[in-house]
Amino acid sequence: MSVLKKSEGIPLYTQIRKSLRDDITKKVLAPGQKIPSEDELAAKFGVSRMTVRQGISDLIDEGLLYRRHGVGTFVAQPHFERDHSRLTSFVETAKEEGIDLSIRVLIADILPAKLKVAQSLSLEEGDLVVHVKTLRFITNLPITVHDTYVPYKLFPQLLQEDLESHHLWDILDSYGFRVKRAVQRLEAREADEEIARLLEMDEGLPILYKERTVYLDNGTPVEFTYCYNRGDRYSLTIVLNR
Amino acid sequence: MSVLKKSEGIPLYTQIRKSLRDDITKKVLAPGQKIPSEDELAAKFGVSRMTVRQGISDLIDEGLLYRRHGVGTFVAQPHFERDHSRLTSFVETAKEEGIDLSIRVLIADILPAKLKVAQSLSLEEGDLVVHVKTLRFITNLPITVHDTYVPYKLFPQLLQEDLESHHLWDILDSYGFRVKRAVQRLEAREADEEIARLLEMDEGLPILYKERTVYLDNGTPVEFTYCYNRGDRYSLTIVLNR
Repeated sequence: MSVLKKSEGIPLYTQIRKSLRDDITKKVLAPGQKIPSEDELAAKFGVSRMTVRQGISDLIDEGLLYRRHGVGTFVAQPHFERDHSRLTSFVETAKEEGIDLSIRVLIADILPAKLKVAQSLSLEEGDLVVHVKTLRFITNLPITVHDTYVPYKLFPQLLQEDLESHHLWDILDSYGFRVKRAVQRLEAREADEEIARLLEMDEGLPILYKERTVYLDNGTPVEFTYCYNRGDRYSLTIVLNR
Repeated sequence: MSVLKKSEGIPLYTQIRKSLRDDITKKVLAPGQKIPSEDELAAKFGVSRMTVRQGISDLIDEGLLYRRHGVGTFVAQPHFERDHSRLTSFVETAKEEGIDLSIRVLIADILPAKLKVAQSLSLEEGDLVVHVKTLRFITNLPITVHDTYVPYKLFPQLLQEDLESHHLWDILDSYGFRVKRAVQRLEAREADEEIARLLEMDEGLPILYKERTVYLDNGTPVEFTYCYNRGDRYSLTIVLNR
């Protein structure tokens, strides 16, 4: 961090902002690292705490820093940005963009559908569903948990497939079923104990939570998924036209 | 809450689930209310804590309950569901659906654009922007904070308009500018002190955070907005086609 020049006519908070921004760009401050407190920065730069705060606030707006309640201010992790303007699978997107994605199957079993899963898949509660729970990593960092349900009567042999190398929709394709449409509902939620453990984050931190129902071209629902995405690593882009 | 009948062959957790679901439906347990602890429910129903937990877990899946880290389990608030399949304004949607929406302007001023706002609006840092900060209520509950920036050179008279009764896009329409496209980026974030105060929630709880850039039909960016939506009251639906 450089010494500030009060005589140059550039506002001090702009100079602090530039100094911190340079440190982030040059990885002097690494992603995930906690930055010094406002008091420490104020002492270091020889300015008021208010001036430091204004500089930091700008960098939070820019997405370079984020504040954790009662913990401190941190250098932002790069976010994995998913484009939700058209329906693509995570696997397709990753391949196209040269992203190092890997999938670990945590659970693969057949069980009776609970109410919500049954309703989403136009089944009766208790009808059998194939259940696949996966953890997805980007460059070895856990980013998303998927809890997926598929009607057993439509795909009784699904668990014999390689679910770590092939995306579900490609497997359905290979059976002659064409995935056409997805309805997704998004919320921000707290991570519960299990999700926090799987995504290696603290319990209670924000999750971008998604419920997704996937339909074939003939309108049949074939997949219902609960998706839990780490709030600090995952963002989603939508382009809308009027 | 009714007494469970062990002899009927219906699993006990299903009976507990039904009893709680009935209490929620009939508003014996009101939205936002904390439900009794697992121990209390286990004692009340005369079953194990595991059985209670299974019943509660199903109701969380169904979206009727939610758990707050270290605090307890609560009856879910009804979520305001925004459809993001096409570009509509909050005001248009609310009118169509008979929702009691009101907007309070917190700040309306003209100031030099910071870096991120400038870049989003194709301006230089320091160029003047009209800044409007609003708080939106649904049936008197605060749900969303909008921090909106518009290029001053395009709309120098904007602050003379009634920004509480008319949506910005309608005002732009009345000047002959046609809003055509929006690019939105979504994340889950913690509420900071200011947002928590405005939305009457605890600091650190999840916010569905959105950055939005709005373009005219000729491609000119005319609006950049930071949106902060209460995680427990707001959800967003997207329909995607392949």
